[in-house]
Amino acid sequence: MSATKLIKLIDEKKNPSVVGLDPMLDYIPEEIINKAVNEYGKTFKAAGEALFEYNKAIIDAVCDIVPCVKPQSAFYELYGTEGEEALKKTIEYAKNAGLYVLLDVKRGDIGSTAAAYSSAYLGKTDVFGEKLCACECDAVTVNPYLGSDGVLPFVKDCEACDRMIFALVKTSNPSSGELQDMFITDESGEKIPVYMHVASLVKKWGQSTISECGYSGVGAVVGATYPEQLKALRAFMPETIFLIPGYGAQGGKAEDIACAFDKEGHGAIVNSSRGIITAHKKVGGDPKTAWRNAALAMKEDLTK
Amino acid sequence: MSATKLIKLIDEKKNPSVVGLDPMLDYIPEEIINKAVNEYGKTFKAAGEALFEYNKAIIDAVCDIVPCVKPQSAFYELYGTEGEEALKKTIEYAKNAGLYVLLDVKRGDIGSTAAAYSSAYLGKTDVFGEKLCACECDAVTVNPYLGSDGVLPFVKDCEACDRMIFALVKTSNPSSGELQDMFITDESGEKIPVYMHVASLVKKWGQSTISECGYSGVGAVVGATYPEQLKALRAFMPETIFLIPGYGAQGGKAEDIACAFDKEGHGAIVNSSRGIITAHKKVGGDPKTAWRNAALAMKEDLTK
Repeated sequence: MSATKLIKLIDEKKNPSVVGLDPMLDYIPEEIINKAVNEYGKTFKAAGEALFEYNKAIIDAVCDIVPCVKPQSAFYELYGTEGEEALKKTIEYAKNAGLYVLLDVKRGDIGSTAAAYSSAYLGKTDVFGEKLCACECDAVTVNPYLGSDGVLPFVKDCEACDRMIFALVKTSNPSSGELQDMFITDESGEKIPVYMHVASLVKKWGQSTISECGYSGVGAVVGATYPEQLKALRAFMPETIFLIPGYGAQGGKAEDIACAFDKEGHGAIVNSSRGIITAHKKVGGDPKTAWRNAALAMKEDLTK
Repeated sequence: MSATKLIKLIDEKKNPSVVGLDPMLDYIPEEIINKAVNEYGKTFKAAGEALFEYNKAIIDAVCDIVPCVKPQSAFYELYGTEGEEALKKTIEYAKNAGLYVLLDVKRGDIGSTAAAYSSAYLGKTDVFGEKLCACECDAVTVNPYLGSDGVLPFVKDCEACDRMIFALVKTSNPSSGELQDMFITDESGEKIPVYMHVASLVKKWGQSTISECGYSGVGAVVGATYPEQLKALRAFMPETIFLIPGYGAQGGKAEDIACAFDKEGHGAIVNSSRGIITAHKKVGGDPKTAWRNAALAMKEDLTK
């Protein structure tokens, strides 16, 4: 069932880290850029080639250390269909390297539209009776603003295709509180913040997807930058795996997120993007060594 | 400025209708399907070709009647890069036909990620110093769950590139109330629903983008299926253009949304997807005539 595959990989690597594949052209080593521009000019094709070569090199460097990568769709959509092609090739390459692929798309829409997104990323597309994969991932992120209609089509594919989703609950950014921290009055008359209300929806959505590992196929995004809220959410939803952004570059520390894990080291995955994929910019030398060392340092920091 | 272009087109066509280009393969006339499958087999390539040919035929049929089309990204992402190519070709074709193109992507992310989405759809992409367009539209929909961090990068491009965004406020789907109708206590101690709180954020985000037409470049998505909420939101945000989904197939009626318009017939655009693009399935005969008649009937219904 849904969460078991992820937990098995975490156990194998003894590491709950996720490497965020959020490539910007500025980050990419010069030799990769030069090769792409020499071959294809200053075009989207060259950008797509450079993104894929960069991702391949990062995956090669870290795939024996981390269980999971998280490409951020925006940084591929930015380069049009050539960027999207690079994303799809990256996903295939990561899966072949034995990694769990969590695609960060934060989609949220209703009914047949949500079902279309889910088929595209978790299920299969019916093409004149043939069942084809548009962009097959292990998991995606979803946005809860539209309620159950926007999420249940994904949950259906989690059950049918052994996938996961991670719904935004309390995000890591400075302005997340503008909506998520507002207090609402729940059915029992108690005042709770919006993120806690969304957490109760997430629990409900995931109920049918709890697997033998004890965790649900519907995870929650909870930022490392809000340790108090993280602690409260952990207590409220013990069967929910947290995807924790905000570690490293955004300021979240290992001690802030220690509470998210159970005794076996399960219950959360922690993302670092810039902290890993731009490590070569900070330390110089061979980029693969820099990425590898950054991934090893993160593992040590999280598991100490 | 941002909203002026849209309002000029509404005035020219004397029509606030939007045709939602949400194509499913089932909807597409047989001769288009047969041609695509004969040429490319049961493949994504054939699906992409069929989507584009279908959209072209719809655009040809309605472009002198309606001011705006709204492709829904999910129904293109469903067919991988071939679907995304069909989306980009559809957008170009619609712009060349003089239509305003509002792409329904409902993106919502933070900081540099939101900026990447905005560059992809409203601005330009920097590719090794060249400024290229990944998928240039007039406007996109955005999701407000992450607060200002997720929206202000788009607002910047609205100002710089004369674009619009429409933020989800009160969506048309049955479960929208699970979060959007919960009551929060605002700064003054008053109890207001979440959608009204989001509406106040939308007003604030749009303040710098109000143009000589009197409307802001930051619009709001407000469903036709909740007429009471629509009325309250109209009174609260007189400078905000509403994108109204839920008319027709979802049950919203012209009388439910009459309150959204000002005396000049401005202030809202009303979307119909299935009501127009599947009209040929209901009435038979020449599909173009069916789409055209459905668009004319909608115009008459809305402007009576």
